[in-house]
Amino acid sequence: MAKARLIGKCVVAQSGGPTAVINASACGVIQTAMKNSEIITGCYAGINGILGVLREELFDLGNESSEQIELLKNTPAAALGSCRYKLKPLETDRTDYERILEVFRAHDVRYFFYIGGNDSMDTADKVAKLAAQTGYDLIAVGVPKTIDNDLAETDHCPGYGSVAKFIATTAMEAGRDTEALYTADTATIMEVMGRNAGWIAASAGLANRDNHLDQPHLVYMPEIPFTIDQFVADVKATLARVGRCFVVVGEGLRDAEGNYLSEAKGAFAKDSFGHVQLGGVAQTLSGVVKDRCGVKCRHIMLGQSQRAAAHWASATDVKEAWMAGSAAVKAAVRGVRGKMVTLVRGSRNGRYTCSTGLADLSVVANGEKMVPREFINAAGNGVTEAFKAYLRPLVAGEAKVKVGDDGLPVFTRFARRPIATKCGPWKKA
Amino acid sequence: MAKARLIGKCVVAQSGGPTAVINASACGVIQTAMKNSEIITGCYAGINGILGVLREELFDLGNESSEQIELLKNTPAAALGSCRYKLKPLETDRTDYERILEVFRAHDVRYFFYIGGNDSMDTADKVAKLAAQTGYDLIAVGVPKTIDNDLAETDHCPGYGSVAKFIATTAMEAGRDTEALYTADTATIMEVMGRNAGWIAASAGLANRDNHLDQPHLVYMPEIPFTIDQFVADVKATLARVGRCFVVVGEGLRDAEGNYLSEAKGAFAKDSFGHVQLGGVAQTLSGVVKDRCGVKCRHIMLGQSQRAAAHWASATDVKEAWMAGSAAVKAAVRGVRGKMVTLVRGSRNGRYTCSTGLADLSVVANGEKMVPREFINAAGNGVTEAFKAYLRPLVAGEAKVKVGDDGLPVFTRFARRPIATKCGPWKKA
Repeated sequence: MAKARLIGKCVVAQSGGPTAVINASACGVIQTAMKNSEIITGCYAGINGILGVLREELFDLGNESSEQIELLKNTPAAALGSCRYKLKPLETDRTDYERILEVFRAHDVRYFFYIGGNDSMDTADKVAKLAAQTGYDLIAVGVPKTIDNDLAETDHCPGYGSVAKFIATTAMEAGRDTEALYTADTATIMEVMGRNAGWIAASAGLANRDNHLDQPHLVYMPEIPFTIDQFVADVKATLARVGRCFVVVGEGLRDAEGNYLSEAKGAFAKDSFGHVQLGGVAQTLSGVVKDRCGVKCRHIMLGQSQRAAAHWASATDVKEAWMAGSAAVKAAVRGVRGKMVTLVRGSRNGRYTCSTGLADLSVVANGEKMVPREFINAAGNGVTEAFKAYLRPLVAGEAKVKVGDDGLPVFTRFARRPIATKCGPWKKA
Repeated sequence: MAKARLIGKCVVAQSGGPTAVINASACGVIQTAMKNSEIITGCYAGINGILGVLREELFDLGNESSEQIELLKNTPAAALGSCRYKLKPLETDRTDYERILEVFRAHDVRYFFYIGGNDSMDTADKVAKLAAQTGYDLIAVGVPKTIDNDLAETDHCPGYGSVAKFIATTAMEAGRDTEALYTADTATIMEVMGRNAGWIAASAGLANRDNHLDQPHLVYMPEIPFTIDQFVADVKATLARVGRCFVVVGEGLRDAEGNYLSEAKGAFAKDSFGHVQLGGVAQTLSGVVKDRCGVKCRHIMLGQSQRAAAHWASATDVKEAWMAGSAAVKAAVRGVRGKMVTLVRGSRNGRYTCSTGLADLSVVANGEKMVPREFINAAGNGVTEAFKAYLRPLVAGEAKVKVGDDGLPVFTRFARRPIATKCGPWKKA
C-alpha cells in the first residue's frame, strides 16, 4: 500500500559563507517546488538561514516574480540571506529545535530544504529527528554548498567549481603581472580561502599547464605541514630557475603540530622574523620572502571576492547547483527524508557526466574531506595531474551573467514582503 | 616640397605597472607597423621596457606568429616585459640616453613607440630630443597606459575602463556577500590601487545604482583629506541605516597635510587605535571598525588581480587601447614626432564616441589628473551622477577572452628569440 503523500508548505533557507552558485541551488529548489504545487502548497524563504525560522522572519517566494527567481541562477551570495548561527547540541538544549518546529507547525511547513555545509546538515537532521519524536511529520532534505569542497559523501560540492575557476584564472592573470614586472616586483604571495582543507589553494595549480614558465610556481595547502625553512628554500629555487616567484597559499597553513601560521603559534612564533603577528598568511610570508630571499614581494588577499565572482562562474557548477536543489525537492516529494543530495561523477564515452545521489544527513554532518595525498605533488608544494583531471570538468564553461546598460552585472534582489507572524517572539536558548 | 619619409625599424616597449589592455596597445602598434612595412622595415620589441633597449635585449616580432600577436588583444600584463627603471634627468646624466641612441643606431631603429605613463613619456621625449641634438633622425610617439587614469591631456587612459569594470563588478559581488551574511560579517573594507589619484576607488561607486541598498555604501578617494573620526561616523550612520557596511578605499588615503594612512604618519599615528602599523589601508581601517563600531569587519586587498583581470575586461577599453597603439604608428609614419596619442571623447546622436588626438610628450610628462571635485559627492565619501556618466561608456561591453579545454583563459607568450647584439655591454649610468 503506497503511503499517503505529505502535503504542506516548504521552507528553503541558505546558511554559512555564500558562494557564486548557492542561489542557483535555491532556484532549483524554488522552481521545482513550484512545479509540485499539488504537494508543496507554498514556498517560503527563511530570511538569513535558520535565524529566519527562529525569528519567524519568512517571506513567500510566490510573491516574487518568475524573472527575479530565474535571475537567481547567476546572482552571487545568498539572496535569501545567510547566517552563521550554530544551534546547541540537541542532547543538551532542545529550545531552538522546538522553536523551529513551533514555527513550522504554525505555518503548516512540511518540507525543509536547507542549503549549506555540514553544520547545516546537522541542523536539518536534528530538526527532522525531533519532529519525528514529537509526532510532527516533516521531511528535511539538505542541499550541499561550500566553496571549501570538504563535504563527505559527494564527489564535489556546488560552489567549488566556480571558486576554482576564478582562483585559477586569477592566479594565471596576476601571475602574468609578476612575470611581466619581475625586474621590479619579483615575487607575489596570493592568499585564498580554506581554513582546514586545501581544495581552493589546489585549484590555482590548474593555471600551471605543461609550461614550466607558468604561474603559480608554488601552491601550499593545509594538508601538508608547513615550515618556513622549506618555503624559503622553495622560493629561492624558483627564483634561481625563472627569476620570479608566484605563490598561492591557503589561509589555514599550519605546522606539524597543527599550529596555524596566521596565529603565530608554535614554531611560527619564533622563526618567521617578526612578521607573523601582522595578520594574514600572505602578508606574513611576503615579509619572510623580503627578509630571507632579498626580493620585493607583494601580497594579494582576495577575501569574499573569490566566492562571489558570479561574472566568471563555472557554467558546469551553476548547472549542477541548480540540479542539486531540484533533486532535493524531487526526492522529498517521493518521500525521501533525512538525506543530503550528493553529486555523483560518471563518464560517458570518456566524457565527464554528473548525476545526483543521496547520503544520510548525519553522515555528512560528521564528515570532512581533505585533499587526498595523491592530488598533492611529492614535494608538497603543488598539485598532480590526477588532481587536474579531477578539477578540469568542474570549471568547464563560462556562466552567462546578465549585464546592464552600465556594463555591470544585473543581480536579483527579492522584495521579501514578510508573511504575517503566528507565533510569539523567539526566546533564545 | 614634401619631406622624404624616414625609413627604418621600430622598437616597441611597455613600461610600468601592467594593465589588462597594455598588450592590446602593443598589438595595435605591431599590426599597424607591419602594415606599413615599406616605411617601418622591421618591428622589434624591447624586452622589459627601456631596460631591453639599454641591455640590447630585443626580439623581432616578425618571428612571432600572427596568431600569437592577435592573442595580445586579450592577454593581460605585459607580453614584451615591463620595468620600473627611471632614467636620470637628461640635464644631469646623459649616459643612459646616449646608450639608447647607440642601440637604436646600431639596429637602424628610426621609430620608438613607448607604451606607458608619464615617466615613460618623459623618457620618450628626452630620447627624441637628444637624437635631434646629435643629428640622428628618430621619431618617438607615446601610447598612454595606466589603470590610474591620471595622465594629462587625454579624456581617459587605456587600462582604466577595464580596471573600473572589474572593481565595480567586484564591489557589487563581494558587496552582495556582505549583504547576505551581515548577521555575522557585518562590515567589509576593500582596498584598491591608486596612490595619488582616486579614479579606481571612484569606479566602485558605479556599482551603487539608484537603490539605496546597493553596495558600496562608502567610497574614499585620496583627493579628499581623510580623517578617522569622520570615517567612523560614516560607518556608524551606514550601519544604522542598512545594518551593514561595505567600504571601498584607495590605497593612497591621506590627511590634510598629505600624510599617508598606510605609513601611520601625522594624525594617523595616534588616533587609529594601534592598527595603522599593521600594513594596508583596508586592514588598518578594518581594525578601526572593529574597535570603534563594534562589528566584525573583513578586509579585501585585490593587489595585481585588479589590473590583470583580462577575463572581465571592458570591450570598449580593449578596442580603444588597440586604437591608441595603431594611431601612434599612423601618426609616426605621417612624420609626427614628440607626441603622445590621446583619447578624445565625442558624441554622435547622444551616444559616446571615441577618437584619437595628439598631445606634446613634455606636457604629458609633467601633468597629473586628479578626480575633479564635481565627480565626488558633497560628503567626500562617494561619487556623483556626473562621474557615473563619465565612467559608464568606458566600462561598456565584455571582452571575449579565448578559453581552453581546461576552462581557463588562453594567453599569448612570445618565443622572444633574441636578435644578435651589435653593441658592447651596457655600462650603467
